[in-house]
Parts: sequence; structure tokens; C-alpha cells
Amino acid sequence: MAEKPLFDRIAIIGIGLIGSSIARAILRGNLTDELVISDRSPQHLSEAEKLELGHAFHANPSDAVKDADLVILCTPVGTYREIGEQIAAGLKAGAIVSDVGSVKEHVVNALQDVLPAHVDFIPGHPISGTEKSGPKHGFAELFDQRFCILTPTEDASQSAIDRLKAFWEAIGSDVEIMDAKHHDLVLAITSHVPHLIAYNIVGTADDLESVTKSEVIKFSAGGFRDFTRIAASDPIMWRDVFLTNRDAVLEMLGRFLEDLSMLQRAVRDSDGEMLEGLFTRTRNIRRSIIDAGQETDAPDFGRKHHSDKAE
Amino acid sequence: MAEKPLFDRIAIIGIGLIGSSIARAILRGNLTDELVISDRSPQHLSEAEKLELGHAFHANPSDAVKDADLVILCTPVGTYREIGEQIAAGLKAGAIVSDVGSVKEHVVNALQDVLPAHVDFIPGHPISGTEKSGPKHGFAELFDQRFCILTPTEDASQSAIDRLKAFWEAIGSDVEIMDAKHHDLVLAITSHVPHLIAYNIVGTADDLESVTKSEVIKFSAGGFRDFTRIAASDPIMWRDVFLTNRDAVLEMLGRFLEDLSMLQRAVRDSDGEMLEGLFTRTRNIRRSIIDAGQETDAPDFGRKHHSDKAE
Repeated sequence: MAEKPLFDRIAIIGIGLIGSSIARAILRGNLTDELVISDRSPQHLSEAEKLELGHAFHANPSDAVKDADLVILCTPVGTYREIGEQIAAGLKAGAIVSDVGSVKEHVVNALQDVLPAHVDFIPGHPISGTEKSGPKHGFAELFDQRFCILTPTEDASQSAIDRLKAFWEAIGSDVEIMDAKHHDLVLAITSHVPHLIAYNIVGTADDLESVTKSEVIKFSAGGFRDFTRIAASDPIMWRDVFLTNRDAVLEMLGRFLEDLSMLQRAVRDSDGEMLEGLFTRTRNIRRSIIDAGQETDAPDFGRKHHSDKAE
Repeated sequence: MAEKPLFDRIAIIGIGLIGSSIARAILRGNLTDELVISDRSPQHLSEAEKLELGHAFHANPSDAVKDADLVILCTPVGTYREIGEQIAAGLKAGAIVSDVGSVKEHVVNALQDVLPAHVDFIPGHPISGTEKSGPKHGFAELFDQRFCILTPTEDASQSAIDRLKAFWEAIGSDVEIMDAKHHDLVLAITSHVPHLIAYNIVGTADDLESVTKSEVIKFSAGGFRDFTRIAASDPIMWRDVFLTNRDAVLEMLGRFLEDLSMLQRAVRDSDGEMLEGLFTRTRNIRRSIIDAGQETDAPDFGRKHHSDKAE
């Protein structure tokens, strides 16, 4: 009954939270005969080996991609061009090269002229993650019921796109095909600007003199702590996001700031009607996100409330 | 062995999420002989009666406070003055009057000259909640290991303050005593401005034409959905917060906007060093909040990831 797996050999370059979660999902689904892992951090690589996240482990990405039918870059996007140059000569004809980066137009620009013409280059972005980093924090279920966006280049073959789509579906995701530029605009509002303002308010609170850091920490359950989760995301990865999706981020941040000016004015003018109108409208969006299976309906994200202290 | 309860009779005015959670915690801890509930919504009142959240139920708050040793207002702060006028004549000499409102200086101003001199008026604010509203969503554990801030007026007796402190400790909370004005500044940064920017970005995303609402919903797991939780909080309660803590909110919002301008400039200038520096610093604050027992260490708030779909 042993079906032929989707890919004979898969190489994952970068075994952090996302790379290691993909590795676990591949192993869970038996999606390849040979899973090859590479990471430039010796510590991450040996951790991945101890966790048995693949069948072979290489410090050098050019060794890892040899004979691979699918290569997935899972490193910060700022490293892509250098990695592309390292692996280009070793890529098998007909291989699919993909990635998981949070920006897509920059990825196309960084890799398109580096990769050989005999591979299918299909950038990808699974919309999932946690605030934790490193191989030990990955888990196979991370992509279940989440979306993965593919932004195929014009040269990519339809059969390669179909294969990569089948791969992500086997991992548990729904796949959407999109233009790279549109992806970057969509993610600017659904992910990048939210991260920017979360990082910003945590920084503001940290800098205050009129309110002590100890007060911020003690009374964070009033709402602030929600923001600290995404403001605890990987600093290098997020630095690279803002360096490589500048225009879309500034465009969406501009819209956010226009709206915030109006809201600031409504507070100053004690315009209760405007405030209540906005606060009522925003309630409905969460309901739609829950109905779409993209969020839990449990109160407070399902955070544990400590009844153990009660007795 | 039956110890005398902390208060012979307690009246809760307003049986929404917070009022009903206090009621459950009182019943859990046997903190009174007679728990009297009032709500101006007949639906909430009959729901509370069905849920057996108290021993007596009155539509009229002036009936509810009769003979009560402790009266807690759990309605939106915009209603306080009217309720104060209704209950003033019926308050027992030596009773403690408190509340759970998210602003405190306004509460003092609204109630101080309405309440009779023979009661101890001690405003309070438990720093806890969820995005759900209504009596059925309350639970006794809501206040466990959270802080409750008391902002006693100058006239309140020390013995009354001690009794109310013991009450909140019996409910599961740590108690901090603070000046009302300082409370309002602290909460502006730890709660009110976070809510304002969450409401704002959800509104911005809802208004876009370049990105469809369906895209915002599908790809919200990139970070946006975190903001929708607090942007789903009760509209009337939050309208009243911004109408009654205007100065502190505008002050903290001003600080947030100054910092955001610098961050916007760093994105425009591709200042990777500044971005990485901020993103590294903000990571530590979450760690402190977790260490202080005010947040879960579970990845993604402990949101459920759907492994059930995998097979």
C-alpha cells in the first residue's frame, strides 16, 4: 500500500520555528523518502539532529540541496540572495525552489536572476507562526487549517505549482495563489503593521517615566499583554520584513495613522457617538474570523485562568 | 466551624461579565450570607436568576442596596451618577460603596457629592476581563492571580479599606492601593491606549478597498487577529472609558505617536539597526510579564492548534 511520496527528496534550509514545523509535518505525513536539513547555526543543526527532524544534516546548504526535488528556504529573507548564490550550481534540473518568507516581491527580486532556468521558482508564505523561535518550538500542527499563499513567477510550470499546492495541502493548509505585489499589500495590513504597532506600544510603555516598568508589568492584563506576544517575535526576521516591504508598510501605516488622527479627535471632542459606532463595527470582524476557522471562540484566546489558587 | 462571612449582605449593581464573575467568586468563597443582584436589563436579571448567581434579584438598585454592607457598582461608568442618586437615600450607615470601573478620577467626581457621608466610598478596579459580555460569560476564576487596584477617597476609614482589601484577596486577587489620578495614567498605557489602537487598526482594515474583507479574514493569523480580541470588547463600556479618561489617554497616545513617527522614519530610511534594537528590547518585557504570573508562557497564548484535522 506504500504510495509514492510527493517528493523523493526535500531540503529545508533553516530549521527554526517554521522550518522545524514543516519538517515535523513532512514526517507526520510521510511526504518524502529523504528529508535533508541545513542550518548555518551549528547549535540549531545539532538540536534538529537530536530531535530527529530529518534524515541528513548539513551545515552547507549547497550540500543539502543536492538531488532535492523540493528546496524550501526557511531563513530570514535578508539571507536569501547569499543562499541562492550558494545553492544555484547544485540544484537539480526540474527541482522546485520555494520559501516561507513574509514578503514576496523582494524575494522574487532577490532570487530570480540567481537561480538557474532549469528549476521552478515558486515563492510561498504559510500564514502561521508563534512568538517562539528555534527548532525545539516547532510542531507539526502549526499549519493545520491555516492558509498558505503561493506567488508563482511567470516562468513556473503549472505542474510544479500543482505539486507544491498538493504538498501544502498534505501539510494541512489551504492554498491561495496570488500576485507577489498584492501579497505584500495584504500582509502589510494583516501582519506587518500589526507587528509594527505592537512593537511600538511595548517600546513606549518601556520608556515611560510617569508609569514605572513594574506597574506596566503588574497591570498588563488590562490589554497591554496581548501586544507583547507579537512584540516578542524574532527580531531579525521582523527587521528584514520591514527592510523588504517598505512601500506597502508605509502605505498601510499611513492609512492607520489617518484613522487614528480621527479617533484622537473624537476622544478630544468627547464624541461618544463616533466611538460607540467604531467599537460596535469592529466587534463583527472577530466573529467573521472565528466563523472562518482562523481564530478560537474561547474567551481570552483560551488562556488558562488559575482556579488552582482558589483553594 | 461556620466562620462569620466578610459581609452579611452584598449588593451587586450590574450583572454583566464582571458583576457575574464577582457573584460567582463570592458564592465560591462563601463571602456573604445574602447576595443581592440588580440589573436594569430584565433579560440579564432573569438570566442571573436562572444561573442562581445570588439570593435576591431586583430591577431597582435602590431596593437592592437596602441593608447591604457592601455595594459594588458593575455597570458602565457613564451610568454611575444616576445610580448613585437612586441608591443614596437607601444606603445603610457604615456601608462600603465600591465599583469596578476602568477609570477612577471621574468615578470620584461623579459619586463623591451624591453619596451620603455615613458610607465609606472606596473606588476599585480589578485588572481582569475577557472580550465577552453578559452574565453567562462570567466565571469565578476571572480574578485569580490578577491585581485589583483600590483608590480610597480621603474620607474612607482605614478599617473599611482593610475589609475591602480582604474581600478582594478572598476573591483571589492581589490588592494595590493607589491615587485615583495615577491609576488613570497607568491604565491609559496598560489598557486604554492598547484598546484604542486595536479598535483603530480593525477599523482601518475594515475600510480598505485595495485589500478585501475576505482577505483580511483569511490571512488574519499573521498577527491581525490578536487585535480583534480586545476590539471585540463591550462598546458602551469602552465608549465611557474614553469619555471619562480623556486627558490621560491623550497624553499616552501622544507618546505612542511620537515613538511611532520615529519608527515610521526608521522604516522609510531602512534603518535596520534601530528596528532590530527595538524588536530585541520589546522581547524582554513579555518575559517579565510571564515571570510575574500575569501571562501564560504557552506559545500563541495557548491557542488550540487543530491536530484533529490531520488524520
